[in-house]
Amino acid sequence: MTAYEIIYRKRNGGVLTAEEIGWFVSEYTAGRIPDYQAAALLMAIFLRGMDFSETTALALAMMNSGKVFDLSDIPGIKIDKHSTGGVGDKVSIILAPMVAAAGVPVPMVSGRGLGHTGGTLDKLESIPGFRTQLSYEEFRHLLARIGVAMMGQTDDMAPADKKLYALRDVTATVDCLALISASIMSKKLAEGADGLVLDVKTGSGAFMQSLEDSRKLAETMVAIGKGLGRRMRAVITDMNQPLGRMVGNALEIEECVDCLKGGGPQDLMAVTYRLGAEMLVLGERASDIQTGEKILRQVIASGQGLEKFRQMVSSQGGDPRVADEPQKVLPRAGHILALTAPEAGYVHSMDVREIGMAGVGLGCGRLRMEDRIDPAVGFEFHCRIGDRVEPGKLMVKIYADDLEKGNRAGDRLRQAIIVSEEAPVIPELFKETI
Amino acid sequence: MTAYEIIYRKRNGGVLTAEEIGWFVSEYTAGRIPDYQAAALLMAIFLRGMDFSETTALALAMMNSGKVFDLSDIPGIKIDKHSTGGVGDKVSIILAPMVAAAGVPVPMVSGRGLGHTGGTLDKLESIPGFRTQLSYEEFRHLLARIGVAMMGQTDDMAPADKKLYALRDVTATVDCLALISASIMSKKLAEGADGLVLDVKTGSGAFMQSLEDSRKLAETMVAIGKGLGRRMRAVITDMNQPLGRMVGNALEIEECVDCLKGGGPQDLMAVTYRLGAEMLVLGERASDIQTGEKILRQVIASGQGLEKFRQMVSSQGGDPRVADEPQKVLPRAGHILALTAPEAGYVHSMDVREIGMAGVGLGCGRLRMEDRIDPAVGFEFHCRIGDRVEPGKLMVKIYADDLEKGNRAGDRLRQAIIVSEEAPVIPELFKETI
Repeated sequence: MTAYEIIYRKRNGGVLTAEEIGWFVSEYTAGRIPDYQAAALLMAIFLRGMDFSETTALALAMMNSGKVFDLSDIPGIKIDKHSTGGVGDKVSIILAPMVAAAGVPVPMVSGRGLGHTGGTLDKLESIPGFRTQLSYEEFRHLLARIGVAMMGQTDDMAPADKKLYALRDVTATVDCLALISASIMSKKLAEGADGLVLDVKTGSGAFMQSLEDSRKLAETMVAIGKGLGRRMRAVITDMNQPLGRMVGNALEIEECVDCLKGGGPQDLMAVTYRLGAEMLVLGERASDIQTGEKILRQVIASGQGLEKFRQMVSSQGGDPRVADEPQKVLPRAGHILALTAPEAGYVHSMDVREIGMAGVGLGCGRLRMEDRIDPAVGFEFHCRIGDRVEPGKLMVKIYADDLEKGNRAGDRLRQAIIVSEEAPVIPELFKETI
Repeated sequence: MTAYEIIYRKRNGGVLTAEEIGWFVSEYTAGRIPDYQAAALLMAIFLRGMDFSETTALALAMMNSGKVFDLSDIPGIKIDKHSTGGVGDKVSIILAPMVAAAGVPVPMVSGRGLGHTGGTLDKLESIPGFRTQLSYEEFRHLLARIGVAMMGQTDDMAPADKKLYALRDVTATVDCLALISASIMSKKLAEGADGLVLDVKTGSGAFMQSLEDSRKLAETMVAIGKGLGRRMRAVITDMNQPLGRMVGNALEIEECVDCLKGGGPQDLMAVTYRLGAEMLVLGERASDIQTGEKILRQVIASGQGLEKFRQMVSSQGGDPRVADEPQKVLPRAGHILALTAPEAGYVHSMDVREIGMAGVGLGCGRLRMEDRIDPAVGFEFHCRIGDRVEPGKLMVKIYADDLEKGNRAGDRLRQAIIVSEEAPVIPELFKETI
């Protein structure tokens, strides 16, 4: 087996064997295949594609390149949830304690925000003291004790994915369905869950903007997971407007607490209940999603969800008062600016990617992994697609630490939110289940 | 301009500008773009292709990465000839002195044999003392004084092509029409000729086995040359059997002398006259190829061609007696083996690539650039496609220095030359002119 032959076969549209893929990944990770051969293979994969068997083999090879968590001795069917990312998507932070409170252990390894999308770790870290860098042992311990733990990837998880991702980043081979799916799944499967519910976003703020592409991504990830013996479910949900009202790290935590107290906005809670119900079904705690949703509503109504969140925050070093008086505990921005409707009409559509990038400009997110974020800043939306507005009506509150940045973000939002007399089409929240 | 954007655009099937291509090539050659980005671009080019304008820009950029000969102060329209390579193709060595003797200067920078194809430099170096490593000044001087010089590429010619070729070699991106064409033309155009006649081979011993692919290669190279203001002509000729009788370095020189004395085999002389006539037309020495052929026949009949060859050999340090008694001057193999017809029938077809590889096994050629060759060994063909043979009839004489290698080459030839009662189709020598 040589790297040349593998590149040559993929270049010609051939299907690589699991042995070839496993060999290439392990040799590359060990530094015995040079970057230029990996780059040529990545571009050949980008342009020729990979079938389910190849994608599964790639995910497995990348997963096995590093530490794979073994949670088999922890009782229960462990179920995780992963979102492909969007703007205002704080579902994991509400969902993980809710599902754990309902009796299904949730081992969750999350990521940081990059580009227009936010990241769960950044949001959690806006809680003073909250530690997302846990050790494997600590993660296992928390999971066994309270049924939920949320951490960042450790350095020794899926190193092949890290190395290949860095190479994809500079060779224009990032946005490839097979490579994206294998990359996500290699990391998610390394955390040792028995099942995974995927929230695949679609729309102007999603990684995949068309429903067709989102469906392919969902199908590929489900196929990989099933191919590796995991319980899998994917729900395709809308990302043509921010999810919930808040965008920005501390603001989103505040909204999560609101949700756990029973006061969350309808769209955000609908997605949370739905994904949670799927998790309870996979975890055999509910026979169907209707039952699952009923259990979760009870978890919220009884305060068990909020209590589990408080327990999780406190176990991971965070200030547990965030569960009671988030506004007193979380960082607050120095200025609040109001963006009002320029004219009468309907909120017709939103460029959610641009809204996310306006947030990055404000300090909510990053363009590069090494950029620093400002946890306090963000947006509070007071309008949704389909709302009727009159001139001067408050559309968005902008929380800024720097007035100039706040004004600039306002200008971008004004461009990104289209108000028109044309009757808007209100996007369906749930598209498909796979 | 960034390497990433250029890779990204080509990956998406976009057309790169001359500025982008020029920038990428010069930055890569200077070591400011890493191999992995160049590898990704090469694979994207391989799978997405390049149009004539891009291919021309690539050839120009690679040519300009190093020394470009300036022959403008040497009188006359300088015309060179290039063959895409085959087995037994010694046309350049007969042609260059003939055309020079007819009054058109021939500045020729040639290559070495690799794989199944032979190389002009290796053949010339079988003449004792002959130097193919000339300096730019020496090359110019010879061209001005005797009208012909034959040399190898200098280290400072088209360094971008050398660097990119080495990368293509390990990333499975060699056999790409645009990259092949640009590579050939970048080297050929750096030698400073005003025009170029291309002999594009087609058939079992050619780089391009189908006529369609050969035509595309010819068209692309002609387009590049014309795009850079050169006089261009391409003739597609047959390579379904070795050209002439001899295969092997010293043996081919012997055959060249035979040709220059008027005794060459019909097929070899037909190709030589035809290509030479095209050169005389491009060099404005003949108004059409009929006139050109007539002039060249006269050059042979008068002995002027042989005399120019003698002059060239002697000017480049070789033993000029090779022009009179080649068998006394050239190295001779220790053994001659006879390959005879196994049964009655027609010589139906030949696998010329396999014949070339049998030659490599014998010592005529190389698998890698660093392999050493044996100038004395080779084959003397006594049959052509369409010939009727009876059992025991001599088909090929094998000149070997090692009996075992000679026998092994014989076994391979036996497989490569098909004798059958089926009536053979005799391949047309000339296919198309572009």
